[in-house]
This record gives sequence, C-alpha cells and structure tokens, in this order.
Amino acid sequence: MDEVELNRGLAGVLVAETKLSFIDGEEGELIIGGFPLAELAANATYEESVFLLLNDRLPTAAELDEFRADLAARRDIGDEVRAVLRRAATERKPPMDALRMGVAAATLGTDDQSNETAARRVVAVLPTLVATYWRYRAGDEPVAPRADLGHAANYHYMLNGEEPTDAEVRGLETYLNTVIDHGLNASTFTARVVVSTESDVVSAATAAVGTLKGPLHGGAPGPVLDMLREVADGDDPRAYVQAKLDAGERLMGFGHRVYRVRDPRAAVLSAAAKSFYEDSGDTEFFDTVQTFEDVAVELLAEHKPGRRLETNVEFYTAALLHGVGIPKDLFTTTFAVARVGGWIAHCLEQLADNRIIRPRSQYVGEKGRTWVPVEER
Amino acid sequence: MDEVELNRGLAGVLVAETKLSFIDGEEGELIIGGFPLAELAANATYEESVFLLLNDRLPTAAELDEFRADLAARRDIGDEVRAVLRRAATERKPPMDALRMGVAAATLGTDDQSNETAARRVVAVLPTLVATYWRYRAGDEPVAPRADLGHAANYHYMLNGEEPTDAEVRGLETYLNTVIDHGLNASTFTARVVVSTESDVVSAATAAVGTLKGPLHGGAPGPVLDMLREVADGDDPRAYVQAKLDAGERLMGFGHRVYRVRDPRAAVLSAAAKSFYEDSGDTEFFDTVQTFEDVAVELLAEHKPGRRLETNVEFYTAALLHGVGIPKDLFTTTFAVARVGGWIAHCLEQLADNRIIRPRSQYVGEKGRTWVPVEER
Repeated sequence: MDEVELNRGLAGVLVAETKLSFIDGEEGELIIGGFPLAELAANATYEESVFLLLNDRLPTAAELDEFRADLAARRDIGDEVRAVLRRAATERKPPMDALRMGVAAATLGTDDQSNETAARRVVAVLPTLVATYWRYRAGDEPVAPRADLGHAANYHYMLNGEEPTDAEVRGLETYLNTVIDHGLNASTFTARVVVSTESDVVSAATAAVGTLKGPLHGGAPGPVLDMLREVADGDDPRAYVQAKLDAGERLMGFGHRVYRVRDPRAAVLSAAAKSFYEDSGDTEFFDTVQTFEDVAVELLAEHKPGRRLETNVEFYTAALLHGVGIPKDLFTTTFAVARVGGWIAHCLEQLADNRIIRPRSQYVGEKGRTWVPVEER
Repeated sequence: MDEVELNRGLAGVLVAETKLSFIDGEEGELIIGGFPLAELAANATYEESVFLLLNDRLPTAAELDEFRADLAARRDIGDEVRAVLRRAATERKPPMDALRMGVAAATLGTDDQSNETAARRVVAVLPTLVATYWRYRAGDEPVAPRADLGHAANYHYMLNGEEPTDAEVRGLETYLNTVIDHGLNASTFTARVVVSTESDVVSAATAAVGTLKGPLHGGAPGPVLDMLREVADGDDPRAYVQAKLDAGERLMGFGHRVYRVRDPRAAVLSAAAKSFYEDSGDTEFFDTVQTFEDVAVELLAEHKPGRRLETNVEFYTAALLHGVGIPKDLFTTTFAVARVGGWIAHCLEQLADNRIIRPRSQYVGEKGRTWVPVEER
C-alpha cells in the first residue's frame, strides 16, 4: 500500500459530484444552481437561492410564500442559548466562536426529526444567533426576529433595531446570494464528511462554522476594510500601494488560489456596491475604492509581470457590507449566514447517495515500545 | 481535469503522515504512540496515554503529576453551559447532541489562547459535559468534579455520585486507552480538516463529536448490549445466533471493515472484562458473553465460509462498559471521552506542518439558466 503518494491537501482529488455550483477558474466563471452568478445574485432573494439549491429549480410564487413563512417560523432561540451568547459577548469571545456555540445548540426548542427540516432550521437561525451575540456585545438587548420581514431584511433589522432601507436589503441580499456556494471549499467539504457517517445536518453546520473560522478559509474582509478606510481617509492610493509593494507586503483583497482572472464574485459585488453607493447619494468612499482597485491592479502587474492579480471576493465584500451597514467584526459571521445555504444543500446531496468519507494516514512513528512503570522512568 | 476518477469515500487516499497510531488490518495489529495496544492499554492511566500522544513519549513521575493536576483544573463548566445541558436533557435530546453543544461552548470561562491549552481543556471537560447532562436526564443534580481523582475515576464519580472501585476505574481506564486513537477514522479526519484552515482545537473537537455521532462511525455498542442481555436472560446462544442467521440478519458486534482477523481491541477489552468480572465475583454474565462469542464465530464460519467474521471492538465494549457501570445510553459519548485524546493530538500534529485540506467536486448540473421573475414562473 505504501507506494500510494501522499496528498496532504487532497489537491485535485475528486470526492463528490454536485449540482450546486461550478467554478471555472481559468475563465472566471461561477455557476450556482444552473445560473451564471450575475444572473442569480442581483435578482434573487436569499430564500429563492436556498430553495434553488435544495430543489434544483426556482420556486413558484406559492412555494416561495410557503418557504419564506416556514423559514421565518424557525428563527427563534431560547433563553439558555441567549444566555450562552451573552456570556460569549461578555467574555469577548470571537463572533465565530459564539456562532459555533449557537449552531451546536440549534436543535433545542425544536422537534426536528428529519434532515430537511433541520436544514431549514439551521438556515433560519444563523442570523438570530449572530445578531443576538452582537447586540449583547454592544451592551444592548437582543431584538426579536420579525416574521413579516424577509431573511436578509430581518437579519439587518435584528442587528440594528431599525428596519433597513430597500437599498440596504438589496445590497445585503446580493452579497448573500453571491457567496452562498463555491464548490468544495473546506467548510463545505467538512459538512459532507460529517454527514457521511449518517450524522445530522446540525452537526455538519456546526462543523462547517468551525472550519470557516480559520483565516485560511474565512479570509480577511475586515482588514481589507481597514485598508480601504485608511486610503479613503487621506492617503494617496498610488503611494499607499507602492509603499506596500516596496516593503514586500502582500496586498489584501487581491489574488485567489482558483481564479486566474478576476473573481466573478468581485464583479457582481462591485456592481452591487456601485449601485448601492450611488443610490445613497454619497459615492466618495466608493470612488476611492474603485481608484484603489485600478491603481493596485496596474502596480501589481508591473510588480509581478506575467501574473494577473485581480481583486478577489474579499475586496468588494468589504466595500459592500460596510456600505449596507454590517459591522466589520461580523464580516466572517455574515459569510457564514450566506454560506449555510450551500452547506445544508451539500449535506442533503451527500445523504441522498452517501458513502462514508475516510482517507488513510501513513504511520511514521515508532514500533515495538515496551512499557516502563512511571517510577522507573 | 475531468479524467480524474471520482473517489467518493477517499478510499486508499493518503492525506497525512502520523506518529499517533498504526493499524495493520491483515495481521490484526494496532500500535498506539509506538506501543502495541496490549502493552499500553492495561498499564497506562488515561492521562499517560494522552501525554504519550502529545509528546511521543511517556511522562516522568513529575511530568505526570503536573499533567494530571493541569487537566483536573480544567474540568469545570459554567452556569450557562449547565443550563443548556439541562435543557437538552429535559427535551431528551440524544447524548451526542448534548455533548456537541457543550464542547462547542468549551471556551467559555477560559482564557485559553493557544491550541495546546485548548487541547487540554477539551480533554478535561468532556467527562463533565457528559456526566452533567446524564445527571439532569436522570432527574438528579450534577456532581461537581473532584480534583483529587484521576480522569477516569472522576468521570465515573460524576456519573454516579460515588467513588468507583479500583476494579471499575481500571476497567474504564483500559477502555479509554484502547479506543483513544485509530488511524484516520472519519471523526479524526474531520478534526484535521477543521484545523487545516488554521481554525482552532475546540472547533475541531466539536466537529469530531458531530461526526462520531453518525451510526456508520460511532457504531452500536448499545444494541450489542441489548443482544447480550437478551441471550443472558435465558435464550440459548446457539439457537439465538442460528435464528438471526436464518432470518438473514446481521449479527451485531462481529466483523470490521479494516480487520480481516479479530480486532486487536476486542482481545484487549475481552481480557479487561474477564479480569473485571472475575474480581467482582459474578462471572455469570461474562460466561454467557464468552459462550456467545464462541458459538457465533463458529456459526458465522459455517454461514459465510471463507470469510472470517470475528468479534469487533463494539462487542467487548458493551460487555466491559456495562460491567464497570457506564449506562448503555452513554456508550457513544464515552467513546468520545476516549477518542478526544486522539482528536487533539491529530490537530496539533496537523498544525505543526499544515496544509489546507480541500478536494474537488465534479459539476453535473445545468448551465446557462436565465432568470424568470417569480410572477412569471
């Protein structure tokens, strides 16, 4: 068996067939549920995107009404979970830690028996968990969910205690759709491994949150925003980028492992951000962002000839989420609020034709040690 | 890229090098931290086994004292987590669900910053979580951990409210050592995937609990006990087995995916159970268990000639854990209490030389769908 080659990252290994999303990194193409990303992201509500991933088609008006109402009815959390989130906020645990605690307890107060209903529960409850934690963290009381608001609008409302504008909702909704699924990223793969033992969707989503928490996956849209604001607050973009490159630093928000051209999500989020800032009547910050992108792409091309470094999803995530009023510290948890739609759809896809996922390890340790009692060591 | 073959279970794929354990399924050999299983399991305390996996050597007396005291100091849980466990017990959520909730919140009340201290915290707190849930489930108040008791003894004490006998502790300790690690099983693999994004050990252990929950992994030692008690309560073992085989049913507790001969863990647990029941002076149940094994192996060999079906780890897990006083409903959570030592050691091994684990999926869905507004669907 030992002639099998070690593949520590499982690079190139094909472990699943999926109808959920397709990435073409060379062409910069992303398909979600059969739709080119741009076709879906700006048109759909988040509920429509989740329904699409679960059913491989868009809902009729009646189905959408039912689905929205069903999700809205699954948003509540109980006193015990609230108390855990309050404790996490008091101890200033990271938002993703609080979210992990909350999702792990998502079965409380429910009598979900099937993976289908548990999947809906998980999607519905994530915004409540994030917002409850965040309100406590700010010293405020949580805001109860409002069943008359859609998924994205209600998330925004629970965070801020006020009904969002239509432009804010549309911007947030576009973000949620844009990052809802993206092939077999590490958190999605984790979710599939968990259910492959015939465990359940709540366990899988909890594991996925814990995986997305890692900076190699969840990324750094927060620091990207810090950078953009630093530039907007007075630095000359060209001088800023040049100084970074001269210092040998990596420029956050540029380049992606998979995409050789501009990340298609960056284009969609850029258009959504442009539209949002123009509607708001204040384009100053966004103008800086665009100037920064142009300058950075130009200087990066000079700095690393032959390698195209374009804006990635984090760059315009920062610009858009900041615009629509999501606090920087919640960028990664908001990523989870979006990606959970992909996680649960991958779980159900895995379970529909399951095989336990179990690779091998190579032993490189000692053999044949003999026991020595502690007093003789 | 599409000529790569789909490998849905990742069978045979080598994803990690490890010094933690080695399985030879043909020979029925299991090495843990350099020791043949039989050499380690019956001699070590659980703390020594965990230290071994973390340090690739046994501790000196002074190191063991320090390690035991450090683990003992990390056993407490706070009011909020207790309240969640009480709620889980009231709602009669499965023990593994309650454990997932508790482990997810294991960072509360701690200021662990390093993966090394978080690893110790996770090992230390699992027994408290299981016992607290179980006490509530039985309508009792939780029993606070006692720092003067070792890891295994304290777990038993928190479950039952009384100090266990030496024989009970030795039996439980042998079980914990026996199943502490077993190559890249699904939960251990999950833990490595989670930390491969540079996430943390608590997130990884939470994910591993959720993976072990699945019946394809956590198995069915509880039903094995039901079967053994049914046989002990009067059925003739030979008639019982023959009836099962005639009905085309699978005999629980026999056969293993990896081992072609008797699972080496079954031998170690069998010896531990024999010793325990003999010490207790009541060998009636254990005599039935052994007779049952003999008869079943004989009849299985007749039933499936050419295929050796021997007792697996579940068979003697049931006999031993039942003997030392672990309730049947806690067999899988007690498996987690043991396996967590392997999980955290694999996490630290992965992080010491990390690469993000991210295989690929093959898209088999539609392309080029166009958006249709909901009112036109």
